This record gives sequence, C-alpha cells and structure tokens, in this order.
Amino acid sequence: MRRGMISAALVLVLFGALVPASAGGPTPAKAGEPAPAKAGGLAKTPALPGPAASDEGMYPLSELKKLDLRSKGLAIDPEDIFAPDRPSLIFAIVSVGATGSFVSGDGLFVTNHHVAFGAVQAASTTQHDYLTNGFLARTRGEEIQAKGMTARITETFQDVSREVLSAVTPNLALADRTKAIEKRMKEIVADAEKKNPGKRAEVSEMFIGKTYVLFLYTYLKDIRIVYVPPRSIGEFGGETDNWMWPRHTGDFSFLRAYVGPDGSPADFGPKNVPFKPKRFLKVNPAGVKEGDFMFLLGYPGRTFRHYTASYLAYEESLRMPYVAEWYGWQIALMEKMGEKDAGVALALASRIKGLANAMKNYQGKLKGMKKIGIVDRKKAEERDLQKYIEADAKRRAAFGDVLAGIDKVYAENRVRAEYEMVLEYLRSSVNLFNFGWTAFEAAAELKKPDLERDAAYMDRNWAQTKQRLQLAQRNYHEPTDKAIFKELLLRALRLKGSFRIKAVDDLFKADASENAVDAYIAKAYAASKLATEPALTDLLKKTPDEIRSAKDPFVELAAALYPAYQELKEAQKARKGALDTLFARLSDAKEAFLGKNFIPDANGTLRLTYGRIKGYSPADAVYYKPFTTLAGVLDKTTGQPPFNTPSKLFDLYKARDFGRFAHPDLKDVPVCMLYDADTTGGNSGSPVLNAQGELVGVNFDRTYDATINDYAWSEDYSRSIAVDIRYVLWVTQKFGGAGFLLEEMGIR
Amino acid sequence: MRRGMISAALVLVLFGALVPASAGGPTPAKAGEPAPAKAGGLAKTPALPGPAASDEGMYPLSELKKLDLRSKGLAIDPEDIFAPDRPSLIFAIVSVGATGSFVSGDGLFVTNHHVAFGAVQAASTTQHDYLTNGFLARTRGEEIQAKGMTARITETFQDVSREVLSAVTPNLALADRTKAIEKRMKEIVADAEKKNPGKRAEVSEMFIGKTYVLFLYTYLKDIRIVYVPPRSIGEFGGETDNWMWPRHTGDFSFLRAYVGPDGSPADFGPKNVPFKPKRFLKVNPAGVKEGDFMFLLGYPGRTFRHYTASYLAYEESLRMPYVAEWYGWQIALMEKMGEKDAGVALALASRIKGLANAMKNYQGKLKGMKKIGIVDRKKAEERDLQKYIEADAKRRAAFGDVLAGIDKVYAENRVRAEYEMVLEYLRSSVNLFNFGWTAFEAAAELKKPDLERDAAYMDRNWAQTKQRLQLAQRNYHEPTDKAIFKELLLRALRLKGSFRIKAVDDLFKADASENAVDAYIAKAYAASKLATEPALTDLLKKTPDEIRSAKDPFVELAAALYPAYQELKEAQKARKGALDTLFARLSDAKEAFLGKNFIPDANGTLRLTYGRIKGYSPADAVYYKPFTTLAGVLDKTTGQPPFNTPSKLFDLYKARDFGRFAHPDLKDVPVCMLYDADTTGGNSGSPVLNAQGELVGVNFDRTYDATINDYAWSEDYSRSIAVDIRYVLWVTQKFGGAGFLLEEMGIR
Repeated sequence: MRRGMISAALVLVLFGALVPASAGGPTPAKAGEPAPAKAGGLAKTPALPGPAASDEGMYPLSELKKLDLRSKGLAIDPEDIFAPDRPSLIFAIVSVGATGSFVSGDGLFVTNHHVAFGAVQAASTTQHDYLTNGFLARTRGEEIQAKGMTARITETFQDVSREVLSAVTPNLALADRTKAIEKRMKEIVADAEKKNPGKRAEVSEMFIGKTYVLFLYTYLKDIRIVYVPPRSIGEFGGETDNWMWPRHTGDFSFLRAYVGPDGSPADFGPKNVPFKPKRFLKVNPAGVKEGDFMFLLGYPGRTFRHYTASYLAYEESLRMPYVAEWYGWQIALMEKMGEKDAGVALALASRIKGLANAMKNYQGKLKGMKKIGIVDRKKAEERDLQKYIEADAKRRAAFGDVLAGIDKVYAENRVRAEYEMVLEYLRSSVNLFNFGWTAFEAAAELKKPDLERDAAYMDRNWAQTKQRLQLAQRNYHEPTDKAIFKELLLRALRLKGSFRIKAVDDLFKADASENAVDAYIAKAYAASKLATEPALTDLLKKTPDEIRSAKDPFVELAAALYPAYQELKEAQKARKGALDTLFARLSDAKEAFLGKNFIPDANGTLRLTYGRIKGYSPADAVYYKPFTTLAGVLDKTTGQPPFNTPSKLFDLYKARDFGRFAHPDLKDVPVCMLYDADTTGGNSGSPVLNAQGELVGVNFDRTYDATINDYAWSEDYSRSIAVDIRYVLWVTQKFGGAGFLLEEMGIR
Repeated sequence: MRRGMISAALVLVLFGALVPASAGGPTPAKAGEPAPAKAGGLAKTPALPGPAASDEGMYPLSELKKLDLRSKGLAIDPEDIFAPDRPSLIFAIVSVGATGSFVSGDGLFVTNHHVAFGAVQAASTTQHDYLTNGFLARTRGEEIQAKGMTARITETFQDVSREVLSAVTPNLALADRTKAIEKRMKEIVADAEKKNPGKRAEVSEMFIGKTYVLFLYTYLKDIRIVYVPPRSIGEFGGETDNWMWPRHTGDFSFLRAYVGPDGSPADFGPKNVPFKPKRFLKVNPAGVKEGDFMFLLGYPGRTFRHYTASYLAYEESLRMPYVAEWYGWQIALMEKMGEKDAGVALALASRIKGLANAMKNYQGKLKGMKKIGIVDRKKAEERDLQKYIEADAKRRAAFGDVLAGIDKVYAENRVRAEYEMVLEYLRSSVNLFNFGWTAFEAAAELKKPDLERDAAYMDRNWAQTKQRLQLAQRNYHEPTDKAIFKELLLRALRLKGSFRIKAVDDLFKADASENAVDAYIAKAYAASKLATEPALTDLLKKTPDEIRSAKDPFVELAAALYPAYQELKEAQKARKGALDTLFARLSDAKEAFLGKNFIPDANGTLRLTYGRIKGYSPADAVYYKPFTTLAGVLDKTTGQPPFNTPSKLFDLYKARDFGRFAHPDLKDVPVCMLYDADTTGGNSGSPVLNAQGELVGVNFDRTYDATINDYAWSEDYSRSIAVDIRYVLWVTQKFGGAGFLLEEMGIR
C-alpha cells in the first residue's frame, strides 16, 4: 500500500466532506473482534516465546504512560521513547505526508520508495529516468531536490479542548457550530505560531467533538534525494503484490533534510546545510527474528474504530463501492492513454499508482468487512449499549437519542452521497476545472482576513496549494482530462430530482446528448489557457472582479457552480456539527458502559504501536511465515515489470555475497517481514524498532486481510509489512554501491 | 484435476500419435531434482516423527519386492498388499478409466465424483439433474446405470518381452517393425483370452521397446450409481480450485459393480447381482494425521521421467503451448454457447471440464518446467552420460549414437507437429467429422481379420467405440461443432508448403476465403444426417462399397482425407519404431552408467506408491498445511458456483454435528489432505491407505506445483490431494442421509 498517498491526501482531501474531518469516539468492545477473544485485552500467543506483546492501539504520546511497555518486551526506558524534557526517540521521527526517521546526525532519513515516488518522478525526465534506474548522489552536492516534499518533527503538544469548545455558544446552528470551532482552532494556531517563531502549529481533533490537542512542529522545507533503488527493486511486484504477502519489495529510499546556514528551516537553496536532528536512530544491521518484540512510531492517517454501524454500512454498501468503481474507470482510461506513449505513461504513473492503491485497499476492506460481518457486530454492540442506556432514566435522558441521532445523519448522507461525490470529483479529478475552480475560489477567499479563509488559502498554506497545482500541470494530459471531464458531466446529467446540478443543466439546456457534451468539452479545452504557464499563475493572482472578466471557460464554470459548492460546504459543516455533539456524547456513554477510557482513532498525529514479528494464517490450511528472502525475489522474477529484477541481484545471489546481512536461520538475505502492530495509512516509512529502540525495518504496507484494520484490528489477521533493514542495507551497499551511507549510519 | 480424464483418455487418444504409445527408459538421476538433494535416494524429513517414508516411484506389482515397505512405515505384511496366491489388497482395486476400490463384499466401490461425472451427466435430464442435486439410491433397486463405465480388476501378470520382441526380424523398415510388434501383442492377447475365458487380456509396454507384460483382468460391465453428492460438494471450487491447494472438494462417489446371476461379467441387466470381490478394503473412520505413513494403489496413466531433453523441449516449446491455446479457444467458445441455454451448457459441461482440466495441467507444467529448468537439467545429465559412453570404445560403438538419434526423431517431429495436430484435431474435435471418419475407417478396417485391425475396430473394442460415438452424439451441439470445424479448416488453410492438406485445398480451390469456408460448412451440415440416429448407426454397419455411395459430406471428406491419415499413421509407426530401438538402448546405457535398474514410467497398469501425510512450501514464506477443514469450505463459499454450498452444511457446522469424524487437533471435519506419494493422471479415485492398509482417503488431484510430476518428482513440491475419508463418511451420513452405506462398510 502507499499509505502516504491514501489517507492524508486522498481521504482527507476528497472524502473529508463525507465523514467528519477527524476521528474520535469510543473504542469498540473487544467482544466485537474475531475469535479468539483476548483475555484482559492482552494477546496470549502460546506458540511464540517471550512475553505477550500485541494489542490494538495507536497510542498518542499523551497516552504512552498508560502502557507498561517494559512488560510487553521493551528493553529500554520508555522515557527514552518520549519524555518532554529529553532528546527522546520521537525527535528522530519525521512526518513527510507519511513517515520517515533520521538515521544520521546529518539529517539523513529513511522512508519508503513509494513515499519519495512523486518527488523522484518530478526529478525524472525521459533522459534521466530515476524511477526506472534509481538514483544515487555520490556527494552531498549531487543530492537533488525532492520537489513537493516537506518534513515535520513533533516538538510539543498540549490539550486545548476547553479553549476550543468554549467557542461554542448556546443555540448555534449546526454549521455555525463547526465554523466557530474551526475559527477558534485557527486562532489557537496563529497564537501559538506567533509565540513560537519558526515553528508550525496545528490543532488536531482527537475524540470527535470532544478533545483537541495543539501540536508544535519543526517544519523543514528543503528535502533532497540521496539514494533511491531502481523501481524494479523499490516497487518490485507493483500493483500485483501491493497489499499482499508474501512480499518482496525493497520499498525504501534515503533522503536528507536541509536547513538554512543559521540552522532554521528554509526553502530549497544552495547555501543550505544538513539539518541536525536532536536525535537519530541507531541502525541495527542484525535485524530481528520471529517472535521478537517490536514497536513503531509514525503518523497514521485515519482509522474508524469508534464509528457506528450506520457509518460502516454506509461505507460498505455505498461509498467504497462507488469510489472503487470510479477509480477503476480512471485507471483503465489512464493505462490506455499511456500504452502508446512512454512520456504520457510517465506523467500519469503517480496518479495511477495512487488510484490503484486506494482501489485495492477498498476492495480488500469490502471483502474483509463482509467476511467478519463487521456491520452486524457493531449493531450487536450498539444494541447492548442501548439496553444499558435505557435501563436507567438519567442515562436515557443523557444518551437515549445518541445512536438514533447518528444513524439519522448517515441516513441523510446516503441520500446525498452520489450527488456530493460527483460534485467533489468534478473539482478534484478534472485538472483544468480544478485549476479554474481554485483560481476562482482563491479570489473569493484571499480577500478575507487570513483566519476566515478556507485552510488551502491561508497564508501558511497558499504556497503549497499553488505548488500542488503546478505539479498537476506538469503531469497534465489533455485527452485524459477531457475523458474524465466528459464522464463526470455524463454522471452529473444522470442525477435525479432535487440533486440535479443546475449549472450543468444550464450548459446543456438545449441539448443534453453525448454529442452536445463532446462539443462543449472540445470548445472549452480549445478556449482555456489554464493548461499552460503563465496563464494559471497569472490567474491565481487575480481579484474577484478581475477573475470574473477572465473569460476562461473553466473559471466561468466555477462561477456557475459556486452556489452548489457553497451549499455543499454548508451541508458538510452542518453534518460535522451534528456528528460532533453526537459522537462526543456517544463517547461518554461508552465510557460509562465499559468502565474505561479509550485511545482516539488515528488522525495524522504521532503515534506509537507495538507487537511482535509474527506470521499468520490467511486461509484454511495456509500459513504465512514472517520473513521473505532474496531467493523469493528471484523466484518471482519473470523479467517483465513489475516482476523484473536487475541481473546484478542474481549475480550477488549466485555468489552468495550476503555480507553480514543473512538471516541466521534462513541463510539468505531477509527481504520483508510481518508483525502484528496496529498501523494504517500514514505509517508508510515508519521505523520498525526492536526492544532496544534500534531500527530493524521500514514499514510500508499491510496485508490484504489487514486492510480492515481501519475498522477493526485483530491479532488473527492484522499484519503490517516492513522491508527488513538487512535488505535495505544490503541493497544500498552491495547493489547500490553506497557503502558510504552505511558508514554515515555508523555501520562498518 | 480429473486424472481419469486426462491421461488415459485425452493423452492416449488425442496425442498418442505424437509420442510413443507407451513409456519407458531410464529413471533420471536424483541429482537432476531440486535441492535439497536426498541422500541415498530416500527422503529425510526431520520435522516429522516416525521413519522416513517418501520416495519417487510408481511401482509395478513385479517390483514391489524391491521395496522394503516395512522399513518405510508399513505395519502389515507386504504380501497382504500383493502375493499371487493370496486374496491380497490389489483385488480390491478397480480400474474405471481412473481408479476405484471396493469397500464392501457386495461390490460397492468408492471413486471420485469427477470420475463418475460423465455417467451422472448421462443419467441426468433437466428434470432430474443429478449433477446439481446429487443422487442417492435408497435401495439396490434404485441404483441407476453408470453408462459408459466399466471396471477392471488385475488378476495376473506375466513378462512376455521375449515373445513380443521375437516378432522383430532383421532389416524390417521402422514402421513395419512397429506393426510386427503390435500384431504380436494382439496375438498374445487373443491367445490369453482364449485360454482364460471371461478374462480380458492386455499386453503393456513397460520400458519402451524393451519390456512387455501380459495382464489378465476381470472385466465388469454393469456399473451402477449408488451415491453422488451434489456438484456443490463433489465439485466445490470447480475449475478455479482444480489443481490447487488449499482444496475443499468432496470429490467422491459410490458405485456398485454387478455381474450376471452366475457371477460372471455381464452387460447391464435386470437380473444381475452385486459382484463379490475377492477382497474389499476396511474403511477406517478415524483417518490419518500429519506425518503418518500412507500408500496408494491405482492405475496411473502416463509419466515421462525416462524421456530425453529433446522430448521435453518439444513439449515445453511446441506441443503443450499449442494444445493449451487450442483448448482455451474451445472452452471460450463452449462457455459462450452455454451462456443462454442451460440445456446446451449441460451437454457441453463434460467436454469443458475435460478441456479445462488438461489446459490448466499444461499451464502448470509449463510454469513448473520453466521454474526448475528441466530441459537444462536433462541436458546436463545427458552430457554426463554421453561423456561416459564416449570414454570407452565398446560403449561408444554400442551407444554412441543413441542420444543424437533420439534428438533427430524429435527434431523431425517438430517440423511436422502443427500439421499433425491440425489433422488429429479435425477428426477428434469435430463431432460430425469424427462420426463420418469412424464410419469410413470402420468399413475399411472391419473387412480385415480381427488381429490386423486398428485397436478401436477389433471385435473386443468395437462395441465400446460405438458407444463412445453415441455418447458424443447425445451431447452434440451443432453451432459449437460448426465453429470448431471452421476454426480447424482455417488453421489447415494456413499450413505451409509440403504440409498443405491436399483434400482441404481441393475443397477451397476456387475460393479459400472465410466466406467460402462458411458456405462449405453450412452446406455440409445441412446435408449430413450424422447428427441423428439411426443414420449414424446405419452408417457404422456399411461395407466399403456401400459407404462410398453414402454421399454424406463428412464421409466424403473422410475419403478425401484418407490418404493423409494413412501417411500420418505410417509416419507415427515409423517414429515409434525408431524410438523403440533407441530408447531400449538408452535404457541399457543408463543402467550401465548408473549401476542400477529402474522402475518403468506409468503406463496405465496397476502401481503402488507410498509417502507421508505432509504439507509443503509452494512459495517463499508460504506453508501449506496438509489438512483443510469444513470451516474452510464455509469460508470459501460465495453463494455463486463453483463456490456455493448447500445450506445444510452450514447448519451442521453451526450445530457442530461432526459425529465421530472430527480431526482431534483441528476440532473440525477434515475435508482434504496432502501427501508426497508419486501419482499422476489415472490415480484419480485411488484409495489412500494407512500403515494398516485401511482406507483413509480418496485420491483426486495433485497440487499445481506437482503437475510436473509427470516429468520430475520431488519431495519438495510433489503433493497429491485426497478427500479425507472422514469427509466422505460425514457427507454420506450427515448430509446425504445414507448411514446405511456406512453400515454396509462395517462402520457403526
């Protein structure tokens, strides 16, 4: 999986509208998870030596003290992982959309190949194809800019729930409630950034409508590519193996963070110097073995464990099937477009990768949800909870309407879902309309005071928003864009009743045939200049009045659709307002019922999870062992992508030139490994750490069975996948010839 | 897999022309097999308890004494398996195309669902669909005829090599050499049948061109269907799971053999009585466990372990890819034809099943051959042998030209291969031409003395040949037949140079366009009466003169193609003549080189093979356990064929109504199991026996990795699959309600 790609980016940007913008609510009872049930919430794994270690949970830093990690198998002081006043391990962890970790005092960090994929693609040309051939900077001077990448380091955090919630005054309309909270969060951020110059602040909702935490981050903007293996190693197995085990992907890359000569964050520049992290990880080239305790740190994007049956049913029966189909449609289109032209294929590669990754994730989830009957389970839990609530008059008064209230919101959401998705995809999937829309909305937003703007247009984000458009423009392919636009217009024209889109109907008032749609599209693309610079950049600078006279057909369409998008925004904020209060009360009711409190769903903030190196049984009579090997890479090699392998790997294998990196039992270089820690999208690139807190792997995926992790973790099927540190180091040294990087990591 | 279908039927009938008609030659050295190499030719499996048991080998009865089965794990006297003068276990084994075994004194025998498939299909109508619903005879009177099925029991055998080879006189042309041997074999058979009234005799070539054995069989012709589970159990998983593990197929059926009131073999008749076998198997409802010794008896069809690299290369690069493609083409056609009409689908079901089975087998073989590099291995072995031969002048004189001679035969075969395949498929795949051809050839053959006829037309076979045509006629579907005929004519018209088929060219002399082919076909099918009775039966009775005036277009085509088929037959016999002498000498050379003798390749005669209940690793980091369970059946169930499951199975599972049939460790009914015995097509239905010689499973398939068994057995990947006796008994009793059959088997 490409976690970095799905959760933070796609889910929040594209579907944030359909679910509350961040997670929360009560943890589902363990009874709701598949047999064997775990006694006391702790796994017993009799087949493996050592203390029991695995359990559900992506622990925020504030909750670490609840965990007795020593009893699970940790061999170091837990305060060495995190203590506010120590240069603890968390300072080695960076958020790069997904996750990375520093492995030297000179800002060198390791993350996944797929996390750096977009940057490597952006640096590549048909002459210098770093995706295909890999890239190695033999000196610091040769390191190249990782365009679009930034790195955040969590510095401090602070509960600001009371401050946030005090913005809510009685009798606020639901949408206004949401706006008041959003505004207060922005104010807190602005205040914090003012008080902490050079830092980036963010308020994250932990439990929906209930708890909010202010995080302060160091924010590094000059990131460079140091070593990336060729795609045939870094993406070996491609979409076929994605979300699968056994896995043989060398999904790692090395990058370096730079800062200005004075040590403070700076944009890319020739005078910049390597960043000196407060802490970097010790790399252990001996790796781990089956049964070992492990933990990982990272920035998991989103989970939905605290959500209700009505939400899960909506996902299972409506949203995910629609999205999977729509992504499949786009993938088929883009693959066809790329067939005859390598340049087009390269331009569309990253989009295809992202779409395919999400589609397969959804397919896996849908299969898993059905298999474990997750909606029925949740319903059973909720029936028990409702009984408990109704058994007491006080409880009934406080919580009696909560579950029914949530169900009602999702029932209303269902009715609007297709309409909302078509609107959302119009402005996100069609490049030229995305450009036109952004320019039009920017003109309206930029004239507002900073704190009142939509996030994308705030001063702190505007540069990134523009950069995103420029990257999209670089990969723009007109025939693809036209085909997507056409399909979405046709879908819009098929919407029914009150969900007709007036602006679209107006376009095709005279003739709504496919021919008319084709004619409109041909004319619009011929007339628009948004595909090229400087037209787009110019447009992004315009005032509302100027933009209305710009006469670009996509800006005109944006203007026509503006009321629809305004209504959409209001509806989403009202829905969020309703769910905020309901989920906050649900959380209280569950705490009372179960007599404990919970850890919040993942929300893109720094978390710790732990477990053990462990195989599992994905099906009757099948057992997956926890390590794959180099021999397995060669076995899978067909010579055709995604199963081609550089011949040098065969030569090294034949010579059994494994260096110090062979697994003592397997007598081969271990390639990937499995463990039962609790991860999700965003954990891509997370360091896998042994009991000593040393780096032994780089997390990059989950198994197909574990795609439903986002809804329900289980020791039976929840397995994540890392590239084994031995393969990382072996490839870097023996294949890549970059032994000097091992030296920089202190491996001699 | 459907072994019964592929080897004996398809391979011999359809491709016998392309390879010698039976097998032989030296066993390949163990060094030629994948690591880990086995010391002393015996497997060591340290992970499993008990003595080592597995090894390559399908032992003919004559070779059993070479085996120290007690040391492998057998707990009974080996003479209880076979001794000429005792009612030993071999008398419980029947050949039914594939294999079956008696389980009661009243002629009840068990075999596979897929072995009885054709007979069940023949007994089914759209009103009484026994394939879909299963069939149970609650009384003997309700048992229905298994049309097309016969059963043979091996009674005695005798080496007749000298007698056969004495037919070869010096300076015979190669084709004449083959004819002389064939004639002598027929004479020996006729003589033996004369001396042993009521028995069926057969001479089987054991080592090519070198050793021949006369077998005498009891030959039962009245076979009836007793219990067949519904297809959703007996064929669960269908083509998707065919040749695969994990497997969840209840691939068994019970039939009963009948004889005349006097106890001698008789055709189906109302006065017949159950056959009383000399021996029947004790059924052990407790089954086996992992690591247990097992053996099986049966009639494996063909293996090619003694063949050369040139033969394997021909198979890998030419014949199998062509056949797999051609079968795939036919399957796609037939599936399309059956889409809209359940009657057509039923009529084509058995053919599709056979084609798909062979196609997947070939695909598996091709994958496996490439994976283990079998051609290169064989070449290396042959280089060593050639070195040994050339190191000594006497050896060089005796054997120096053998390998080159064999290579030359296959090189010539390659050139003719496509031409021969098109000719063969014309007369085997096109029903109406098959009928016309058979009638035409019959007229020519039947006028000859019996011993000079082609086997199909000899008195002893002629009734079965006609029955085969009648069964084909019952399933005849004109649009399918036309499409196949057209495709083959188009392929014939694409043949080049000296391989043009004159009779086909003559048909389309004026116009060889696709339209002309369509027109010819339309006319031929409109004019022919062969699709209906009594036209076909009438035609089969005609003399050569009568048949020439019959004026059926397919008979006319047969007459036109007769010279081509005569040339083909001569060429095949010449090839066989050449290979006979060469392979016999190769065998001598290898025996001298390796200092041992070998067991012959499988050739459809009774064999014993043994091994252990054992899982394996099909791929890096994956382990297949040796038992599947009922829970796994339910897990795989989608509700759509081939993964639908009767709801009663769910009910029984929920009630945990496992009777005495639960596996003690798995706490569930075991469904299928794996072992490393050496099997191939024809072993379908073979009894799997425990150390006590008791029935514990019914063999029905191999794993995908084991499809290359036919070329190279290995303890690493050679695994066969049985339905566990506990599932057989549980389904029969708990699902089928046929507890009385368990009582008949002595299980109370």
